[in-house]
Amino acid sequence: MKIALTLPDDEVLELDGPLPAAAAARAVSEGLARRAVAVRLDGRVIDLHSELRAGGRFEVLTDNDEDSLQVLRHSTAHLMAYAVQELFPEARFAFGPDVENGFYYDILVGRPFTPDDLARIEARMKELARAKLPFVKTIMSREEAKRFFAERGQGFKVEHIDDLPDAAEISIYELGDFVDLCEGPHVPDTGLLKAFKLMSVAGAYWKGDEKREQLQRIYGTSWFKAKDLEAHLTMLAEAEKRDHRRLGQQLGLFGIKEDAGAGLVFWYPKGTVLREQIENHWKAEHRRRDYQLIVTPHIFRGELWRTSGHFDFYADNMYTFDQDGQTYVVKPMNCPGHILVFQNELHSYRDLPLRLAELGTVYRYERSGTLHGLLRVRGFTQDDAHIFCTPAQLAGEVTKLIDFSQELQRDLGFNEFQAELSVRDPANGDKYIGSDGEWEEAEAALKSAADEVGLAVKRMEGEAVFYGPKIDLKLRDAIGRLWQTTTIQFDFNLGRRFNVQYVDEDGQHRHPYIIHRALLGSLERFVGILTEHFAGEFPLWLAPVQVAVLPVSAPFRDYGGQVTERLRSAGLRAELDTRDEKVGYKIRQAELQKVPYMLIVGSREMEQGTVSLRSKKQGDEGAVGLEDFIARALDEVSRKH
Amino acid sequence: MKIALTLPDDEVLELDGPLPAAAAARAVSEGLARRAVAVRLDGRVIDLHSELRAGGRFEVLTDNDEDSLQVLRHSTAHLMAYAVQELFPEARFAFGPDVENGFYYDILVGRPFTPDDLARIEARMKELARAKLPFVKTIMSREEAKRFFAERGQGFKVEHIDDLPDAAEISIYELGDFVDLCEGPHVPDTGLLKAFKLMSVAGAYWKGDEKREQLQRIYGTSWFKAKDLEAHLTMLAEAEKRDHRRLGQQLGLFGIKEDAGAGLVFWYPKGTVLREQIENHWKAEHRRRDYQLIVTPHIFRGELWRTSGHFDFYADNMYTFDQDGQTYVVKPMNCPGHILVFQNELHSYRDLPLRLAELGTVYRYERSGTLHGLLRVRGFTQDDAHIFCTPAQLAGEVTKLIDFSQELQRDLGFNEFQAELSVRDPANGDKYIGSDGEWEEAEAALKSAADEVGLAVKRMEGEAVFYGPKIDLKLRDAIGRLWQTTTIQFDFNLGRRFNVQYVDEDGQHRHPYIIHRALLGSLERFVGILTEHFAGEFPLWLAPVQVAVLPVSAPFRDYGGQVTERLRSAGLRAELDTRDEKVGYKIRQAELQKVPYMLIVGSREMEQGTVSLRSKKQGDEGAVGLEDFIARALDEVSRKH
Repeated sequence: MKIALTLPDDEVLELDGPLPAAAAARAVSEGLARRAVAVRLDGRVIDLHSELRAGGRFEVLTDNDEDSLQVLRHSTAHLMAYAVQELFPEARFAFGPDVENGFYYDILVGRPFTPDDLARIEARMKELARAKLPFVKTIMSREEAKRFFAERGQGFKVEHIDDLPDAAEISIYELGDFVDLCEGPHVPDTGLLKAFKLMSVAGAYWKGDEKREQLQRIYGTSWFKAKDLEAHLTMLAEAEKRDHRRLGQQLGLFGIKEDAGAGLVFWYPKGTVLREQIENHWKAEHRRRDYQLIVTPHIFRGELWRTSGHFDFYADNMYTFDQDGQTYVVKPMNCPGHILVFQNELHSYRDLPLRLAELGTVYRYERSGTLHGLLRVRGFTQDDAHIFCTPAQLAGEVTKLIDFSQELQRDLGFNEFQAELSVRDPANGDKYIGSDGEWEEAEAALKSAADEVGLAVKRMEGEAVFYGPKIDLKLRDAIGRLWQTTTIQFDFNLGRRFNVQYVDEDGQHRHPYIIHRALLGSLERFVGILTEHFAGEFPLWLAPVQVAVLPVSAPFRDYGGQVTERLRSAGLRAELDTRDEKVGYKIRQAELQKVPYMLIVGSREMEQGTVSLRSKKQGDEGAVGLEDFIARALDEVSRKH
Repeated sequence: MKIALTLPDDEVLELDGPLPAAAAARAVSEGLARRAVAVRLDGRVIDLHSELRAGGRFEVLTDNDEDSLQVLRHSTAHLMAYAVQELFPEARFAFGPDVENGFYYDILVGRPFTPDDLARIEARMKELARAKLPFVKTIMSREEAKRFFAERGQGFKVEHIDDLPDAAEISIYELGDFVDLCEGPHVPDTGLLKAFKLMSVAGAYWKGDEKREQLQRIYGTSWFKAKDLEAHLTMLAEAEKRDHRRLGQQLGLFGIKEDAGAGLVFWYPKGTVLREQIENHWKAEHRRRDYQLIVTPHIFRGELWRTSGHFDFYADNMYTFDQDGQTYVVKPMNCPGHILVFQNELHSYRDLPLRLAELGTVYRYERSGTLHGLLRVRGFTQDDAHIFCTPAQLAGEVTKLIDFSQELQRDLGFNEFQAELSVRDPANGDKYIGSDGEWEEAEAALKSAADEVGLAVKRMEGEAVFYGPKIDLKLRDAIGRLWQTTTIQFDFNLGRRFNVQYVDEDGQHRHPYIIHRALLGSLERFVGILTEHFAGEFPLWLAPVQVAVLPVSAPFRDYGGQVTERLRSAGLRAELDTRDEKVGYKIRQAELQKVPYMLIVGSREMEQGTVSLRSKKQGDEGAVGLEDFIARALDEVSRKH
């Protein structure tokens, strides 16, 4: 048989098949094949050992390819399990996937793993890796596989086989004496596994179910090159220093109180100032772009969530209660409320696009194990908007949104963005609402909008939500991490379910298109990211306290008070340190609080009507006139960064 | 027996008793007795027919006394029931109390009352009243009374007797052929009932219970003088024109959506602008007074509400739900959250007074029958604060609060206030938390604070909440109605229950005093009042749209656009009317929307670079320079009123 492979440059290579993927890679390029980690055939990553039985779009993946890292990490998980099996023969293995930056494996053993255990496991992994052991895949029948794992006491694997759909192909991978139930793909052999490190152990439940066995999850990281591993470890150390949970408490910004409930954020006075700066800027920028701001309640009758469909597919995440025989829901999203506001009047096509925006606080149940500071919470304020528009306006609105998102996030200190366009899986058309034509039109509109603003988008096949395609934007922070913030989601569903209408130019009633969008994502998550990005040293316009006025001793408190008053009347957030402490102590305190400017006042300053300026960035700047400083600070505030 | 009556001027009158109250009134003053409606003995209002059997503080009530109006209205309810009994002999009577400005009676009859019925009832009331029928009170035994009402088919009365406590004295009042179960007091005879009017019929349930009989509630109003009735009817007509529910929809401010739930407010775009102006001013004024603003979640674990005591005495008004075996509460108040924030650090006496403030949205279950527009809702944003202070700081803080409340409400357009000091009932000491000494100190502190700012307070005996005394402020609106807004509540309870502490100067840990306070009450209710006060014609700084720019025809749209942009860049909220309509139509629309200023632009204005000004207050003002108008408008905004 002939196999036709379409290469990335659209050239077609015809080969005699079936043949191993590795052989096909060699046919493409010997040089490339030597560096091959796996291959991609029609979007699916497969082993080099696999046999190609049909053609398609073909690509050889080397260690430069992002997908290769996933393969590497998954293979490292197997390698770790192998080492654990040798050192802890009683170990029972659950799931061991690759994750961002690394991998984990959930394991049941009789006692907690110690740091010393991790060191031994890692050392054994290194020895095994050096042996360049191959990953060998075998297909088994369901019964054969169940018997195989049952004999080895691997009950989780048996249970998992039972959970797999009837049509699933059951495969195992052998790595030396370690055999795992696994779909693959894997690297060809352990020779590629060189730059890895075991990081930590955490508790986890089998299938995340708190009623089932508690397992130990060993996390590790894995890279192709030692320098990448090193960079990652440096980044982690840096992230540790910037941890927003620690800074939140230290700087009096925000915190979570277990007494009140997990995942529920308290904004302390300084955090509230920071949040307000963002909110005020957000509101002004929205109004400037002809958004209409609204405020809707936090609880709604259950019927609305039946109409919206949330009760069908989102009930597990919703907080509901009954009163007077009515079901109510603490809103997990703002959409139904915005639709009711839109429906308050009969709209004409002339009113479109109509943009309703709200800083809407929503509550969603998340498992307690998934909560993390402000980054993953149960209550958060979405910077939400719904845009009602005609089909012809769709692409233009999305273009504006991508621009707006980047402008807003630039104002807040971020400069690098990545975009993903999530489209449907055309092979699974019945999973989605809306016709083929509508999907094609909407996907094309999103794509052309991104092109329009010159934003490269990564196409995520099959990643669209059921109600429409979306574009997500991720920002890159100061230490290189990517965080998803903006989501722009097209919706075929809600307009129909709620029978949202407008009167078109021809007098016909039509459903408008609806775009859901959040630019920052949520204020909580965004401020968490922002705190780590700036390591708590916020730009002047955002700093909760912008200026600390520090009298060198008691006689200069009055002058300090006058300076403080003048700063405040100029619109600066200034605080006077009236404590009976040495000025050195006051400076250290202000530095710990990451206050951008300190104005030290003593006898010379009082006589001359000046202040002695000390900035967080440049240290001691000497005596300056108060009005000069104010002008400089106000200019810095207005420039934002 | 001798009866000693202490008169309002502290003179003591000794009379031979027992004697009728009317006789005692004559002994005080023949002239006063002729105008007497009832008397007050030791704070309790009693009939003129009643026999005085003991002395006490004694006061003759005439038609000038507020309590007399209540007596009059209650008597008018009986008179109405008498007329209904004559016209609808099958009528069964439920409750018929006096209420603000009038009275109602809940009645079961076979068919709905029509407007014509009300006219007939009112006519018959007038005839009966002219007969000067006396109200005659008789004491009955419980069994006798039940038999009496059962024989007359008055089942509600029988049921009510069963609900009365064992020790209750059962009394009836006869008015001609109408006999009612009633405690009294009443006016001596119907000769005083001259200025009344039946207003409306509404549905009501027996005992407010939706599972029981549905009754018809006839509302009426009643006054001593025809001119007072007339003034009241004029005020109602004026109030009707100002109804915030109608204006809320007409002006695009706010509304309630039954689909989402009763008592839950949606703020539309223009209402959101109005609300934001108030919020921003509120925040700035609080920060200026050294308040620290915070944001806390809307749901909390149940334990907090057990600690606070709300589960014991407020559970019926709380929305609760369970998740993961935890009870959660949608917060009905902000106190526990504020206490957790206070407890985030260990505070020293130097930190006090510490003032935490939040525009905190709370949810409370209220029976659907009690809901009314924005004035009585289920979800509302309290302008809340908790002040933690030392005992010595209490009076000073309350003084500042009374000042602050009045300044804030003056800024918002109100100029007349009344104050009530609610103190405990010393005879019922065990109803309250805190020692006698603490109560005396706290009540005295509140009183002296009011004196300090020269505010007359009405002392409300026994009206304090169980946890401490309070001062409430009411404002008077443009048509003379009083609305409670500010409440300043002292709290002995929460500090102890949550073990809130500060380190005092001597190193001892002590409970701070806590003051709860809301100045506007809630944003919802306050904006409801504000809308009616201004009849939707808000002062410039609050007006959602401050300036409407109206091109006389299409060629002047561009110039209108430039004018609008200039206004916006100057910080004014301006809207350009781009519709293809005659300018007269545009003016009428802007007037309906109660926009304070209209700028009309045509050829002359464009040539001269002016605008033609039309203000809501003064009508056409002719051509003015745009910058002159802007300066005038900004000045008006900054002056607020």
